[in-house]
Amino acid sequence: MTVNILFSDSPERWATYEMPLRRALTKAGIEADLRTDFAPEDVDYIVYAPSSPLQDFTPYTRAKAVLNLWAGVENVVGNETLKIPLARMVDDGLTRGMVEWVAGHVLRHHLNIDFALNRQDGTWTRHVPPLARDRRVTILGLGELGRACGQALAGLGFPVTGWSRSQKDVPGMTCLSGDAGLKQALARADIAVLLLPQTPETENVLNAETLALMPKGAVIINPGRGPLIDDAALLAALDSGQIGHATLDVFRVEPLPADHPYWAHPHVTVTPHIASETRPDTAAEVVAENVRRGEAGLPFVHVVDRKLGY
Amino acid sequence: MTVNILFSDSPERWATYEMPLRRALTKAGIEADLRTDFAPEDVDYIVYAPSSPLQDFTPYTRAKAVLNLWAGVENVVGNETLKIPLARMVDDGLTRGMVEWVAGHVLRHHLNIDFALNRQDGTWTRHVPPLARDRRVTILGLGELGRACGQALAGLGFPVTGWSRSQKDVPGMTCLSGDAGLKQALARADIAVLLLPQTPETENVLNAETLALMPKGAVIINPGRGPLIDDAALLAALDSGQIGHATLDVFRVEPLPADHPYWAHPHVTVTPHIASETRPDTAAEVVAENVRRGEAGLPFVHVVDRKLGY
Ligand SMILES: NC(=O)c1ccc[n+]([C@@H]2O[C@H](COP(=O)([O-])OP(=O)(O)OC[C@H]3O[C@@H](n4cnc5c(N)ncnc54)[C@H](OP(=O)(O)O)[C@@H]3O)[C@@H](O)[C@H]2O)c1
Ligand SMILES: NC(=O)c1ccc[n+]([C@@H]2O[C@H](COP(=O)([O-])OP(=O)(O)OC[C@H]3O[C@@H](n4cnc5c(N)ncnc54)[C@H](OP(=O)(O)O)[C@@H]3O)[C@@H](O)[C@H]2O)c1
Repeated sequence: MTVNILFSDSPERWATYEMPLRRALTKAGIEADLRTDFAPEDVDYIVYAPSSPLQDFTPYTRAKAVLNLWAGVENVVGNETLKIPLARMVDDGLTRGMVEWVAGHVLRHHLNIDFALNRQDGTWTRHVPPLARDRRVTILGLGELGRACGQALAGLGFPVTGWSRSQKDVPGMTCLSGDAGLKQALARADIAVLLLPQTPETENVLNAETLALMPKGAVIINPGRGPLIDDAALLAALDSGQIGHATLDVFRVEPLPADHPYWAHPHVTVTPHIASETRPDTAAEVVAENVRRGEAGLPFVHVVDRKLGY
Repeated sequence: MTVNILFSDSPERWATYEMPLRRALTKAGIEADLRTDFAPEDVDYIVYAPSSPLQDFTPYTRAKAVLNLWAGVENVVGNETLKIPLARMVDDGLTRGMVEWVAGHVLRHHLNIDFALNRQDGTWTRHVPPLARDRRVTILGLGELGRACGQALAGLGFPVTGWSRSQKDVPGMTCLSGDAGLKQALARADIAVLLLPQTPETENVLNAETLALMPKGAVIINPGRGPLIDDAALLAALDSGQIGHATLDVFRVEPLPADHPYWAHPHVTVTPHIASETRPDTAAEVVAENVRRGEAGLPFVHVVDRKLGY
């Protein structure tokens, strides 16, 4: 029987995703009608991005699941018209991209590459950095992305501490959890990497109080979500020298407004939400696998816990 | 019996190395008289740096070995007064530092971090880079440093090709050798890392002809030695766009003169020979191990082949 799959995202993404999705569905043995429009009551699955115009799921009476193309679900998880399972994206390409971005920026700060780039002036000023084994990195969030980044950094020699809601056990790194765990994790964070989802509990996890727990001059790297940081508190900590530098990929408002103080701050690097993207080829296989599971009556993978919000 | 060990390097290095050397010698069970001056005929071992004033080894009639503190030996290997074994430095700290520096600069170029740093102007210009698996890295030189860097880069997902004099077999990377191997290795080098020693054979290994073999816009990273590159040919290739960027840590003349065109070139990054340094704690153990071997009548480790020059 033909499965009706609605692709509900921008026309540009449809252009990128259509062929990979068709290929992956065929490979998974699914006879699918994949389109960008259907009568709502005919739709079996919704391939979705939270930026989509589709915000009222009520008419999709037959739909079995919403399959998100993004890892973050903060803009859909609270949608009260959504009663069916919501799966988020866990994509090997997305994970690899995040590992590369995080490793690149951790090494950039570790080696003080910015100093070298600003010193192309004929002066020979030698600063040999310490070894990675003497630079402690803390990852907040030990999900798909935090774990992969932590393990890559441990592989490069950094002592890595991770923090999550439930206690984890990840080879090669120290795992902490809970409020006391957060304090310990920040106290040893020469470099902190934020890979938490945006939920009511994680909002402003970095604030005046928690920033003060970090070693003086610590570096913050945020490829998670903008609201994890209290922006005013971070700017104050940067000005006082408590925080040495912040490299920020995500913001409360995106694009970050041109007059936001982050752009002009000498100790802030803004990147335009590019840390990692879902990669069509691998993501399409994740979507197809969930359709296959739905049709076979198996539980979906990567289902979001609506109460926890991620 | 007491072993007389001459430390022949600058007073600053003596200040850094004296304690680690004493500790390592004691730990190795060697009763040593370690000093910066001896009557030459009383010296058993010479801990050495090629920048040392000691250039005539003739009066050191009893010495059993010269133990170099640096990995590179190009400034001592041709010394005709040196008839005893010359050991070079293979130090885990030195290797780790080089891996970190190379991984940091490879990721910097891979992610185009310079572009982000130059775009702190309020404009939101998104460029998501390809994944490491689509960025080919070639390492010239598969010794202690080249192998370790290649394996770390392979661990980060880059397809890595290595090239050396004798054919090697390193897990996780493609190994090539010989003239034909060099051509193949360069043809696939989106990023090339130079970790060859300086010898008559390796001088100008990157020249007009070999630079032309690389993919257009390729990146060169040279933490090896300055003379590996024909500077005029590299500048021409940078100007034509054949080479996209060069990050250079080593030069024919160091410090690089302030008026050298590399400093001002928009597609060159100069770093002041800081890629990696011998680390006193670990290096002292390597020195002590060679003294222990010498006293036990065992062959020295890391002995330089004077004919090959490395
Ligand atoms: N910038 C970008 O380009 C980009 C790209 C992709 C994703 N992201 C962001 O990265 C985030 C993480 O992705 P992921 O796939 O790794 O998510 P995930 O697998 O859901 O992992 C989330 C982690 O955060 C922890 N966590 C959640 N709430 C917490 C709390 N209140 N206290 C402590 N820890 C808490 C979770 O703890 P438990 O393990 O105990 O559940 C888990 O370890 C996404 O939510 C998204 O916002 C950004
Ligand atoms: N910038 C810095 O801070 C810094 C710090 C330390 C070292 N260095 C430089 O890094 C260099 C490499 O160090 P290492 O410890 O890895 O040296 P190594 O162990 O002696 O390895 C040298 C490698 O180069 C290869 N090679 C030598 N001559 C060659 C030729 N004619 N054609 C092709 N391959 C050739 C060797 O091939 P085989 O394997 O076949 O012998 C070997 O793989 C040092 O010589 C030094 O100049 C720089």
